[in-house]
Amino acid sequence: MRLTRVPVTALAPEMELPAPEARHLSVMRLAPGDPVLVFDGRGREARAEVVHLEALRAVLRLVEEVSGTPETPQPVTLAAALLKGDKLSDVVRAATELGVARIQLLVTAHADVRDIGTQKLVRLNRIAQEASKQSRRSVTPPVLEPVALSALRWEGQLYVAQPGAAARLTDHLHWESPVTLLTGPEGGLSAAEVERLAGQGACPVQLGPRILRAETAPLALLGALVATGV
Amino acid sequence: MRLTRVPVTALAPEMELPAPEARHLSVMRLAPGDPVLVFDGRGREARAEVVHLEALRAVLRLVEEVSGTPETPQPVTLAAALLKGDKLSDVVRAATELGVARIQLLVTAHADVRDIGTQKLVRLNRIAQEASKQSRRSVTPPVLEPVALSALRWEGQLYVAQPGAAARLTDHLHWESPVTLLTGPEGGLSAAEVERLAGQGACPVQLGPRILRAETAPLALLGALVATGV
Repeated sequence: MRLTRVPVTALAPEMELPAPEARHLSVMRLAPGDPVLVFDGRGREARAEVVHLEALRAVLRLVEEVSGTPETPQPVTLAAALLKGDKLSDVVRAATELGVARIQLLVTAHADVRDIGTQKLVRLNRIAQEASKQSRRSVTPPVLEPVALSALRWEGQLYVAQPGAAARLTDHLHWESPVTLLTGPEGGLSAAEVERLAGQGACPVQLGPRILRAETAPLALLGALVATGV
Repeated sequence: MRLTRVPVTALAPEMELPAPEARHLSVMRLAPGDPVLVFDGRGREARAEVVHLEALRAVLRLVEEVSGTPETPQPVTLAAALLKGDKLSDVVRAATELGVARIQLLVTAHADVRDIGTQKLVRLNRIAQEASKQSRRSVTPPVLEPVALSALRWEGQLYVAQPGAAARLTDHLHWESPVTLLTGPEGGLSAAEVERLAGQGACPVQLGPRILRAETAPLALLGALVATGV
């Protein structure tokens, strides 16, 4: 039987869960004595046991720390432009499954959306936590509040999805330094933005000859990456 | 200005559009004399001109056939297990953008869903047509009604997404024969199914060490493919 995975704020000998997680355990029909897996969202994971369970309160006891699921050899950041409506939810969910270490939201020149409410940011982080749990990662990628593209700082390699670029991600990507994958908004990045990034050492890469929606491009880049087995 | 792209059943000197497309042209505030692009969903595309436009009726005149957008060097089939709820809509939409030539639905051993209504199949085909238009392809991939996995026939290469497989798609894929990418349902393919496919020459491929949702795996495989520039 697959153990239920439960997010906790930190591993501790005894861990009290917040009400929504307690409710989740009740719905799963768990009972005192049942085993679960807990994870702290920063790479640590442990076997634990239900000690106490009511509708809105649950206490777990740590049994033994275990090694978490494998992460990419270097951290991968997805730097994604703000998108309209609820599109970022799908991007955050799939990007978390596909192994990103962090999602940095961006405000770009052609953006239709230039800001994100606190509630929405909290919700995106909750989606990342949920997706992390489902894909059995022990790390939850934080979704970071938007910065202007010009203020983006990165370490290592930066690849920018850009229609018509000559380079291909898989011809350049290596694992000797951290990786950032950058994708634009519905209207695309401006030529000036791409030029400035390239001047700072970024590598524009293509994704075939068709037009991809803004929410598909990040998944295509990350798909290319996981298909290499990382 | 980007021309409006209009699906037609076939290129002809005069083309009458069905009511929904006529309505679409009205909403776009087009008028007689305005240029549009028409495409037949089988690779042919032409510049055309609005001759007549009412709320529910539109007639276009063909001006000149043009060469369509590039397709993959060999046709790519996505063979995808039926999924619960509305998840196939997202898969069909993204797979169309990512260049598939056809989507073959499958019934597999662990499937939660074993059938699809006619209406839903019509709807998925409509989504493919819409996505084809948006990504400026001149080919609309048909979404074919489900067949049992054991009845699947293919030509050329078949790659099966399988957690824990040793092979990687990009190490094997070539463009000397057609390509089929196969993904399982929520519960995964059974060991017997994977074994039988492998016995028929299929190559199981991995997508990294994390668990992907059934609807993310096809996009990861196709992402790996478009990142090679096809």
